[in-house]
Amino acid sequence: MTDFRPPVADLAYTLAHVVGYDRVAELPGFEHADLDMVTEILEEVGGFMAEVVAPTNRAGDLEGARLNADGTVTTPTGFREAYAAYVEAGWGSVPLPEAFGGGDFPRTVGLAIQELTMEANMAFSLAPLLTQGAIEALLHYGSDEQKQAWLPKMVTGEWAGTMNLTEPHAGSDVGALTTKAVKRPDGTYGITGQKIFITFGDHDLSDQIVHLVLARTPDAPAGTKGISCFIVPKFLVNDDGSLGERNGVHTVGVEHKMGIHGSPTCVLSYEDATGYLIGEENLGMRIMFVMMNSARLSVGTQGLAVAERAYQQSLDYATGRIQGRALGATQDSPIIDFPDVRRMLMTQKSYIAALRRMMLLNAVYVDISTHHPDAATRARADEIVGLLTPICKSFGTDLGNELTSLALQIHGGMGFIEETGAAQHYRDVRIAAIYEGTNGIQAADLVGRKLGVRGGASSLEFIATMRELDGELATAGEEFASIRAQLNTSLDVLEQTTAWMLNTGASDPNSVLAGSSPYLRIWGLVVGGWLLAKSALAARELDGDAIAAAQLPLARFYAEQLLPAVSGLVGAATAGSRDLFALDADALGDVARRTARV
Amino acid sequence: MTDFRPPVADLAYTLAHVVGYDRVAELPGFEHADLDMVTEILEEVGGFMAEVVAPTNRAGDLEGARLNADGTVTTPTGFREAYAAYVEAGWGSVPLPEAFGGGDFPRTVGLAIQELTMEANMAFSLAPLLTQGAIEALLHYGSDEQKQAWLPKMVTGEWAGTMNLTEPHAGSDVGALTTKAVKRPDGTYGITGQKIFITFGDHDLSDQIVHLVLARTPDAPAGTKGISCFIVPKFLVNDDGSLGERNGVHTVGVEHKMGIHGSPTCVLSYEDATGYLIGEENLGMRIMFVMMNSARLSVGTQGLAVAERAYQQSLDYATGRIQGRALGATQDSPIIDFPDVRRMLMTQKSYIAALRRMMLLNAVYVDISTHHPDAATRARADEIVGLLTPICKSFGTDLGNELTSLALQIHGGMGFIEETGAAQHYRDVRIAAIYEGTNGIQAADLVGRKLGVRGGASSLEFIATMRELDGELATAGEEFASIRAQLNTSLDVLEQTTAWMLNTGASDPNSVLAGSSPYLRIWGLVVGGWLLAKSALAARELDGDAIAAAQLPLARFYAEQLLPAVSGLVGAATAGSRDLFALDADALGDVARRTARV
Repeated sequence: MTDFRPPVADLAYTLAHVVGYDRVAELPGFEHADLDMVTEILEEVGGFMAEVVAPTNRAGDLEGARLNADGTVTTPTGFREAYAAYVEAGWGSVPLPEAFGGGDFPRTVGLAIQELTMEANMAFSLAPLLTQGAIEALLHYGSDEQKQAWLPKMVTGEWAGTMNLTEPHAGSDVGALTTKAVKRPDGTYGITGQKIFITFGDHDLSDQIVHLVLARTPDAPAGTKGISCFIVPKFLVNDDGSLGERNGVHTVGVEHKMGIHGSPTCVLSYEDATGYLIGEENLGMRIMFVMMNSARLSVGTQGLAVAERAYQQSLDYATGRIQGRALGATQDSPIIDFPDVRRMLMTQKSYIAALRRMMLLNAVYVDISTHHPDAATRARADEIVGLLTPICKSFGTDLGNELTSLALQIHGGMGFIEETGAAQHYRDVRIAAIYEGTNGIQAADLVGRKLGVRGGASSLEFIATMRELDGELATAGEEFASIRAQLNTSLDVLEQTTAWMLNTGASDPNSVLAGSSPYLRIWGLVVGGWLLAKSALAARELDGDAIAAAQLPLARFYAEQLLPAVSGLVGAATAGSRDLFALDADALGDVARRTARV
Repeated sequence: MTDFRPPVADLAYTLAHVVGYDRVAELPGFEHADLDMVTEILEEVGGFMAEVVAPTNRAGDLEGARLNADGTVTTPTGFREAYAAYVEAGWGSVPLPEAFGGGDFPRTVGLAIQELTMEANMAFSLAPLLTQGAIEALLHYGSDEQKQAWLPKMVTGEWAGTMNLTEPHAGSDVGALTTKAVKRPDGTYGITGQKIFITFGDHDLSDQIVHLVLARTPDAPAGTKGISCFIVPKFLVNDDGSLGERNGVHTVGVEHKMGIHGSPTCVLSYEDATGYLIGEENLGMRIMFVMMNSARLSVGTQGLAVAERAYQQSLDYATGRIQGRALGATQDSPIIDFPDVRRMLMTQKSYIAALRRMMLLNAVYVDISTHHPDAATRARADEIVGLLTPICKSFGTDLGNELTSLALQIHGGMGFIEETGAAQHYRDVRIAAIYEGTNGIQAADLVGRKLGVRGGASSLEFIATMRELDGELATAGEEFASIRAQLNTSLDVLEQTTAWMLNTGASDPNSVLAGSSPYLRIWGLVVGGWLLAKSALAARELDGDAIAAAQLPLARFYAEQLLPAVSGLVGAATAGSRDLFALDADALGDVARRTARV
């Protein structure tokens, strides 16, 4: 395990030169959040994460969160102290409204802080992440009274929050949930049911936990239309704001998972627990989507963040491990001198750079969509957020798996030994492609909901925006020639497959779904290539800047060696559903049968 | 965790209709090993593995092998009984020489038995696998006296064997090892040094363990040329064959690994242990390569085997898990009805079929290379083995990682919970891309040693052999049209990139190494597509056979949706080394530095 070096320089570069953070700083309400101020904050956060949170990562994995005999949950050594320091420093409140004690900074800044937290300790970072999701739901749909009652202490982090969706038979199909909410004479509801996979569903980091729980009133319509959302605190709150008696929610189990051991994944049992309705009855799905859309971008960022941490470790190992002799070397070489090890490092670094730019661009549009004075600009930004979110989530987390695997591979046999720490990253990040909507669900969301916005015009306009870079690339000289050529080729592919999707959707939706995952990957690859090209173009005017100097090699490596994968994905994206359904379940399982004739 | 269903039917189909097992059964010495006999044996082995070995897989993961305070190593519950039954049944001896108690069956049959063993329990399968490697080294280089002394009990499995190469500073660079061997007056050697990562380096499955140990005599030349190979038994053997006193080899540690917990990975300390030289001094590397080449094919098969086991589990889950409603369904659907889940299942199944055909083809050429009466035929087969082995090892184990990830993904959140068992496959198989020469080492072997055999003619002839299928595909009708087109396109790509490699190799070996991994992947994809096409063509004459009926959909899915990836790999294979080395270690690590200007 090596030290964590917060990538603040690349975050600042990306904000300044790639994703146009100046557009955010200009928005009403964000005047105080200029780039200098933001960079200072990120420097401080980075230092905090490196010194206070990162050292808890290994113990979190080794010890894990555990359920005690008395039903309480204990987090691993160091988590309580790190969380207390996090609350004390106020990092969680930075992007939240000043009215409730926050710093009123943009979501973009909040996401950068989340990235740094996730890099330090992914398991730990989930506590503030879930709290923030709950806060956002309350900000959007809570009554003034509810906001006053719950938000101030949630914003500081003194009280934690959770999201309670999943039940044993209601995972991707949220509408199948059966937890009951029965209205009481006093206007509160009695909540009864079992929830599973509740991240930080119970723990010892905060005195209070505010659960947001999806449940169904007795005469609610079937499916997702009949779901309501309730505030269900772990402890009831007295009129003076002090904590009262224990509410009827109890921890029945803590899962034994492959990774993020430090994060208690709880089975919670609700037995006539007191709940407070948010908004109106049957508004639950809409409320959950507020939390979910924001969380999906954050989960995509987890893929990036764990990949960054693993990359740093593999780079250190490759620099220090002497083994054999590279071509032309006169003495034994560090393995970084071997071309195939370089390939693994450059692949990690360029994908990580692409992902960071993609996540922050998405966040910039979130801020524009919520704060721009012009309604049309807000609406367009909201469309782009809708389009980019499933791409960020799936592409980011798929790459999280692939890049942590490369980092592990660079360690050779040591990578498979747990003491090294490389394996933990590989195990930890694996959940990110699954939760907050599996990556398959994201792909279905992309082709089923986002692609067709305004008859496809929304997506095509974004592609056209990416094409606008060609003018600058055309005059940027020979060094940019291969980037320009590959980007144009891949944009052609994206445009053609998009046209296929739009044409096919109405008549054959199953074929569109059949190609949705490879199609999403094409989007991810192209957006990443476009942003790295922008990044390299911007670097030309920044002589002497270490980050800037790396942008052209990164963009060119990506364009020449990674981006061409898009052409290999067209077949899968547009093949239709015939071959996917050619074999039935019996035929897919035929391995069990003995063939009659050999 | 679900039951294991041995894929004997597909093994038999592959032997009969795809890889030409009849060519093996015709070889002198293999007359008894006709396909009917082999299929019977595989049926029995499959049943044994399903009933006796597969049930130990989960306990092996949970308990792991452990080092006791007295220095002994205990394997998990059930391993001892399963191993005793394995020895009793004699499965390990099937492919070994009758002269030492074996069944004299071909390597091809031995590999199929290994696949079934690995599917049942990868960790367990390593005990017989390492024993077989040691046996092969002794068969090739041991004296008659040594063979008589050691082989009979190793062939039955009563005595186990190991391979001792790695030391803390000598991993991929075997030549850096420092373990000493000092000749004694009685002709034995005193072996002193420390070995790490020794698979089944100690255990309680057998009374005796026969270590093959690489060490260096005092005046040996530096590097790989100065390495000798010794037999170092755990217990000295008395003249009457009974076990005598303990030899000077002790277990210092058992590693805590991400997977294959049931396999004790040992640190062994040799302190003037008695060793018996095999062959002559300084012949060690040649002896190790006998073990290694055979082991590399077996490790590639591990990727296939664990993927098969994981696939079966994911298929069961997809069939049984009801969640949401597929398009057009009138009631809630099993998730197998969703196109993206189908994609994950078909991707697994078609890659697994391709890998099984590739591994067995390689084994067929091993048998021809050792048993064919004609020297030229043997030599050509040996070339093909040399070419295919690194491809089988790397492509098989890379896919092992990717396919077990898909199997896990199909389980959704349950896949991340250890009780489900999907995570174990993902963790277990991860080592296979690392040991027996990392996949990067395999790629270097392919471009550095194998590609240039006979000035490249050896590789080009194999490509030409694959092209010969085109005649049959051309007349096979419309159903084969896309397979033919995609196979031709990908063969063109393979031929062009091969020409680039051959032309570049002499002048710029670093650029060849730079592209070696993507180039190896192109080979793997093309060979897989070619074998699936053969498989589908053969199926036309086998009406009513369940396996045969699946071959065309599998081949077409692979050709249309997976094989096109080759075109996306050309850029990376032929980009040269410039961009890989454009950033030095400092620049690769620049994330740590704050940019001066934002």
